[in-house]
Amino acid sequence: MNPVLDGIAPSIIRAINARKRPGDIDLGLGEPTLRPDPRPFDAATAWVREHGLPYTANAGFTELRARIAAYAGFGDRAAAENAIVTVGSEEALYLALKAVLDPARDEVLIVEPCYLAYPKLCALEGIRHRMVALDADDGFRPSAARVLEALGPDTRMIVLNSPNNPTGRVWPEEELRALADGLAARPGEPVWVLSDEVYRELYFTPRPPVSIGALWPHSLVAGSLSKSNALTGLRLGWLAGDARAIAAATKVHQLVNTAASTFSQVVAMEIFADPAGLAAHRSHYAGRRALLQGVMREHRLDFAPIEGAFYCMVRLPERWAADSLGAAEALLERHRVLATPGIAFGQSGEGWMRLSWVAEEDALRTGITRIAELFASA
Amino acid sequence: MNPVLDGIAPSIIRAINARKRPGDIDLGLGEPTLRPDPRPFDAATAWVREHGLPYTANAGFTELRARIAAYAGFGDRAAAENAIVTVGSEEALYLALKAVLDPARDEVLIVEPCYLAYPKLCALEGIRHRMVALDADDGFRPSAARVLEALGPDTRMIVLNSPNNPTGRVWPEEELRALADGLAARPGEPVWVLSDEVYRELYFTPRPPVSIGALWPHSLVAGSLSKSNALTGLRLGWLAGDARAIAAATKVHQLVNTAASTFSQVVAMEIFADPAGLAAHRSHYAGRRALLQGVMREHRLDFAPIEGAFYCMVRLPERWAADSLGAAEALLERHRVLATPGIAFGQSGEGWMRLSWVAEEDALRTGITRIAELFASA
Repeated sequence: MNPVLDGIAPSIIRAINARKRPGDIDLGLGEPTLRPDPRPFDAATAWVREHGLPYTANAGFTELRARIAAYAGFGDRAAAENAIVTVGSEEALYLALKAVLDPARDEVLIVEPCYLAYPKLCALEGIRHRMVALDADDGFRPSAARVLEALGPDTRMIVLNSPNNPTGRVWPEEELRALADGLAARPGEPVWVLSDEVYRELYFTPRPPVSIGALWPHSLVAGSLSKSNALTGLRLGWLAGDARAIAAATKVHQLVNTAASTFSQVVAMEIFADPAGLAAHRSHYAGRRALLQGVMREHRLDFAPIEGAFYCMVRLPERWAADSLGAAEALLERHRVLATPGIAFGQSGEGWMRLSWVAEEDALRTGITRIAELFASA
Repeated sequence: MNPVLDGIAPSIIRAINARKRPGDIDLGLGEPTLRPDPRPFDAATAWVREHGLPYTANAGFTELRARIAAYAGFGDRAAAENAIVTVGSEEALYLALKAVLDPARDEVLIVEPCYLAYPKLCALEGIRHRMVALDADDGFRPSAARVLEALGPDTRMIVLNSPNNPTGRVWPEEELRALADGLAARPGEPVWVLSDEVYRELYFTPRPPVSIGALWPHSLVAGSLSKSNALTGLRLGWLAGDARAIAAATKVHQLVNTAASTFSQVVAMEIFADPAGLAAHRSHYAGRRALLQGVMREHRLDFAPIEGAFYCMVRLPERWAADSLGAAEALLERHRVLATPGIAFGQSGEGWMRLSWVAEEDALRTGITRIAELFASA
């Protein structure tokens, strides 16, 4: 087997998920429990009756690429050539890392806490990477200064995620501007920013999140319909940005899987054609978030501000400040609630626990109550 | 950009396809012109209404994996753990190369003429590779002896394709047995055989093609529904074989795209559940092949035996013995027929031209007549 695989640790999330028993309350899940709208599927099935199901071009239907590029909203980079349709945002991340970096030379800086697929993808591709942590005591507030200070001479890409899994934080416009300004002031080859915006539609800030892509030309933005439309199984995502990078990503994509599913692309066309298409589920999540915040405050839990996505980081009592895995195990074994230890998102997540709040209302109330019981016993 | 991409040549097939004008006869196409059965899509849409569209496990639905492993027919390697569901057979090829080989040490031997994605994937992954050519004067007959003679001390994988694109040849059972016996007799670490069997259902031999997987335990077999069921746009394929290799492939697959489309997997379940499912289109191709052979013999064209797939290699007149690209260009410019120069499938294809015979009957007759005219003028 390829020895690089030995260096990639198995997922902590997966390991704890595997211990869930029937009847346990699941606050660990990373996918929506809402049902998707079936109408785009009817339309796509009618399309198959008329057209069959041929390949699309490697980068996807031109019209869908143009829709995605316009949606990304980068001003001067809004044509079909600025987007490629991918097998979920996961493939978009892989393509961005694989296509634009030189593994022999370049280093990646990853902002944490984060989804650990970022460093694992770097390991898979033999790309050097370092983590830069946000401040837990500041509720993991995104900070351009922390990232800019961490840049090294070989850094050629910064990976960030906004709205963020697991913190629920959104990079504010002023921090993104500070980041763009800092990168612009840096001499030498420009540093790419790979921005994972898969939770873009799930925001609870007064205004929609700003994308770094609108502020920094060397941005590559990953997105998908998985979270916005409860369509994780559609495997329909995209990478948007600089046309040369998209062309390089397309070359890799063509070799590794040819193209994204034509059926999934037709479903996506239907959703993009509907003005409410990508925002359809936001109000549902806003309501669930209000409930969650109420119950957590009632139980005096300490949690990071929830500005987006469907996660929340809860601070653990002192006893588990260095053992979030132990807390998650105790919660599961003694109180039958599954949550994700913060350490699963990098060292900076240690002492915290991630709750996913896509569960039904009753389960959510009961789950939080049991967490408060566990904490009280600590 | 990643410098490895500069070393990967653009596709000759793509370049000549781009020159096609409206009204040209297309004998270049690599995908079926038949329409797929829409009923599995109705069933899958009903499934979405009932279940939503969550992720499957990374390796796919366990039941689908079990069906695929049983279909692969390797006897002792027929459980779910022996198959992973992939984004088309293209991803299966990528995963096999990426997961089991050590790029620092191992070499791949690729049997040509072949689909040039095999060497390009090796180049993308930094894996050393050599080509071994079948004998054009023997109609590209598969030969275990040629492959065994070409093995080097570092060879850790052989890539073959049966039924073959572009030759239309099928590896006969006795040659596969000779290959397995030769590999078994070799001291040291076993050599993997990666067998691309994407055309497995399209055979015109008295008996179905035998798979190397039934004869050699260190086989990895790639397949898909793309060609058998006219579902290239479904992006539903698989890799089947040794459970340890499948587990390693799953680790890569999880990182690069999470899982194949759940919708496509439900469509595949429907097709596998139908006893005639994967063989549904064979008789259509058998009829088209009989027509093609009749017209080619009428025009005294020299072609390799058509035992499978939907391609045929036609020998070019002496004038183009070293210039199949020139022949294809002349055919397109002067006679308005698109065919693929043999050089697009490796050096051993030079002096030949690949015809894809999925076109309508009239187009096929006219196309062959015009090829005969071109050859007569040479």
